Amino acid sequence: MSHYQKLTQHFKKISHFQHLASICGWDQATMMPSGGNDARAEAMAELALHVHQLSTAPQLGEWLNNAANETLEEIQHANLREMTLCWQQATVIPEDLVQAKSLAGSKCEHAWRNQRNQNDWQGFSKNFAAVVSLSQQEAQIRAQANQTTPYDAMLNLYEPGVTTAQLDVVFNKVKAWLPELTQTIIAKQASESFIAPQGHFATEQQRALGLKVMSLLGFDFEQGRLDVSSHPFCGGVPSDVRITTRYDETDFVQSLMGIVHETGHARYEQGLPKQLAGQPAGLARSMGIHESQSLFFEMQLGRSAEFIKLLAPLAAAHFPAIDAKVFAVDNLQKIYTRVQPGLIRVDADEVTYPAHVMLRYEIERDLINQTITYQDIPELWQQKMQAYLGLDTSGDYKNGCMQDIHWTDGSFGYFPSYSLGAMYGAQFMAKMNQEFDVASAVASQNLTPIFNWLNQHIWQKGSTLSTNDLVINATGEPLNSDYFKQHLITRYL
Amino acid sequence: MSHYQKLTQHFKKISHFQHLASICGWDQATMMPSGGNDARAEAMAELALHVHQLSTAPQLGEWLNNAANETLEEIQHANLREMTLCWQQATVIPEDLVQAKSLAGSKCEHAWRNQRNQNDWQGFSKNFAAVVSLSQQEAQIRAQANQTTPYDAMLNLYEPGVTTAQLDVVFNKVKAWLPELTQTIIAKQASESFIAPQGHFATEQQRALGLKVMSLLGFDFEQGRLDVSSHPFCGGVPSDVRITTRYDETDFVQSLMGIVHETGHARYEQGLPKQLAGQPAGLARSMGIHESQSLFFEMQLGRSAEFIKLLAPLAAAHFPAIDAKVFAVDNLQKIYTRVQPGLIRVDADEVTYPAHVMLRYEIERDLINQTITYQDIPELWQQKMQAYLGLDTSGDYKNGCMQDIHWTDGSFGYFPSYSLGAMYGAQFMAKMNQEFDVASAVASQNLTPIFNWLNQHIWQKGSTLSTNDLVINATGEPLNSDYFKQHLITRYL
Repeated sequence: MSHYQKLTQHFKKISHFQHLASICGWDQATMMPSGGNDARAEAMAELALHVHQLSTAPQLGEWLNNAANETLEEIQHANLREMTLCWQQATVIPEDLVQAKSLAGSKCEHAWRNQRNQNDWQGFSKNFAAVVSLSQQEAQIRAQANQTTPYDAMLNLYEPGVTTAQLDVVFNKVKAWLPELTQTIIAKQASESFIAPQGHFATEQQRALGLKVMSLLGFDFEQGRLDVSSHPFCGGVPSDVRITTRYDETDFVQSLMGIVHETGHARYEQGLPKQLAGQPAGLARSMGIHESQSLFFEMQLGRSAEFIKLLAPLAAAHFPAIDAKVFAVDNLQKIYTRVQPGLIRVDADEVTYPAHVMLRYEIERDLINQTITYQDIPELWQQKMQAYLGLDTSGDYKNGCMQDIHWTDGSFGYFPSYSLGAMYGAQFMAKMNQEFDVASAVASQNLTPIFNWLNQHIWQKGSTLSTNDLVINATGEPLNSDYFKQHLITRYL
Repeated sequence: MSHYQKLTQHFKKISHFQHLASICGWDQATMMPSGGNDARAEAMAELALHVHQLSTAPQLGEWLNNAANETLEEIQHANLREMTLCWQQATVIPEDLVQAKSLAGSKCEHAWRNQRNQNDWQGFSKNFAAVVSLSQQEAQIRAQANQTTPYDAMLNLYEPGVTTAQLDVVFNKVKAWLPELTQTIIAKQASESFIAPQGHFATEQQRALGLKVMSLLGFDFEQGRLDVSSHPFCGGVPSDVRITTRYDETDFVQSLMGIVHETGHARYEQGLPKQLAGQPAGLARSMGIHESQSLFFEMQLGRSAEFIKLLAPLAAAHFPAIDAKVFAVDNLQKIYTRVQPGLIRVDADEVTYPAHVMLRYEIERDLINQTITYQDIPELWQQKMQAYLGLDTSGDYKNGCMQDIHWTDGSFGYFPSYSLGAMYGAQFMAKMNQEFDVASAVASQNLTPIFNWLNQHIWQKGSTLSTNDLVINATGEPLNSDYFKQHLITRYL
């Protein structure tokens, strides 16, 4: 057996345990009764340790070296590259640092759930100090191994290949036009009125509508499910993708578009190359590309006038007791394209969202590169919210720098993925429109060409190309934020 | 660290992986879409292999030997005894035989699902021959290690400590009175009439009723759930017990009593000693004792006149559109105590059930001890069904020897547990009645003393006592089938 074959067997084994982690993680969020939590946490920790041990098995280094000298096909080369990356990322950090960060992260996150509600920055910062310090250590070690800056090394965990230098160019461009564009849109929308949904929107009807829309979007129910969790997510494995939503019985708007969003994630997973199942090159490319798919579904497709024309009669049919004017296409579109600066990232519209990401990016970059300390965060938050969105957050930690879960367990480097996803999504749509008229396809209820394009250029590629090559391969150029700007101008002005 | 402590850590680790297996197994039966099956089967097989490797880890033999010489408390001694048993059972069979049997069993079971429907004994027996041969090999090896007969060695996997000699005594006694008693009961019931449920019993209402009855029976919903699967079972882990049922919208009777049955299994699991969680001595004692709890709930308690008095108004309230006469206590009790010999074990009432078990026991005992061959099974089945239940099954393999899943994957030695459970259950009830008036407790809607008795004498004991000691400790004597006979006479004559 060649070393490459030994490696594929080993990574297949790892993927089997990750399958179990994924399903049990989904269960924890959707099905598990509260009393099951302690035993589950222990079992999941044991599994995580086992996966880490497999990922850092002593023989892997030699196998990877030897495999590099074997005759491999192109796709095998790509897989070997991804295996090597997985192995390097897993082995470079000493076991005791992995455990210390995991413990500090769990402790900080757990306490944060209460501290956030109590606006308790002082209490939070006691635990947070340790998480930051351990994350800085991790970043230093990774930086040394990769010969990059500490923050670039962290970024690499979520967006392999993307650098601070690139992000600074992209975000500086966005910063130059976004605040003014936002104000212009708000001024324009100020004179518009719409009818907000009022009444009872039964969970069962919302779910039925959600399933209909998932079908319309090509979700394969033989290979997936829709359930409920307090924080919507897409989990499971490619042959069994589990998406979730939450229902608010006073409104259907958020849950419905949330399902469209998660269906984008799901179709990416369902479309990953079967022949690479269980191999690193068969996985989704990155967090940013994943988000590009959910945001393509939600923002590019889902909130387009043509898609809302399809959505409106479906929604109306599920809520016969509600004022039909709510479901008028024009009204529904106004609801789904309302722009309003707010304090909370997850509630933000697509126009103001990048501001939330940029401020987090700038803060976490400087924190991990140790040019600021965690004590500087509240004031920086306040300054940047004022500058980018004109909002005052002084003293409001709960709706300020304590609102997100990401930093509590040390996931520094993740936030840029959200805006990269929005930009990739816009770029994909622009390219698709050069090849065929997307709006007409949607208007004629024929979404197949859209899915085929995504399948061919994104889903089927898995991780066989680097993010940069994937984007160039699909669109003819690397990331270009102009498409995102143009999308916002076209839709909102 | 003492060797005993090393062992507890190791077995705790095994239990964490078993936790994952249990939850993913539950998911497979209740939640998983069909397309997820192949990847799940692979992941579960990988996990089973890992658990087997941990259970046969080379250092365990030495640790077990050394721990036996350490100073241990009584409960630790019990745990060490159970650890040793687990280890012996796992290590005695060579790895290649484990895998060969697992493969042959999967193949036979998979094909059986169609072959059974087609009454195809010829096709079935081709795969079954291999399963029998490998099971005979397994039994031989276990017999040699334990210095018992081959069948006793298999029995020991499900009912540690119970022997063919004991079973022969028990079943020969039962055989002496059961056929006649059955005929007497049938003759008596021939003149009785009852109103069968007719109409629509919506799944949602059946589920609501089931949840109510689970509450009445003390099921802890903080530590468990009720779901749907095509074959009802009790799964999960002690802090998160998952029971299932299936709903037939033309009748509520079976599903309701099925829920009572599974709740018995569930309360046993929920009641296992927390201080031994994750240790072999903290597990349920045996298949027979597990079944004694489900059958205590279903047969001793659930079908008693007093419990049906509690059940009747609850059921009536959930089906207001159904003829109220169905829910008259007397009518409901007639439905739930109807005796009728039939071909199918899982549909059998408590009077005829032992006949189904005895015939299977006699056949599998002789098959594993190699005094008959698998080709003899159909004729033996026919003879015994005629003798015990007066039914003709010639040529009907589907409703004869091909009806059960147990033999298809080589689970020989399991069937006696069902009848042992029924007998233990009757014996526990008889003893309980010596201590307090169970019927009055139920009639006054105070089930607590019943649960307390079971908790103290069965649930909290886990596997700290042998089955025999557990039964003696709880009732003052070893298994005595007279209590079961007396129970049937009292209820049915």
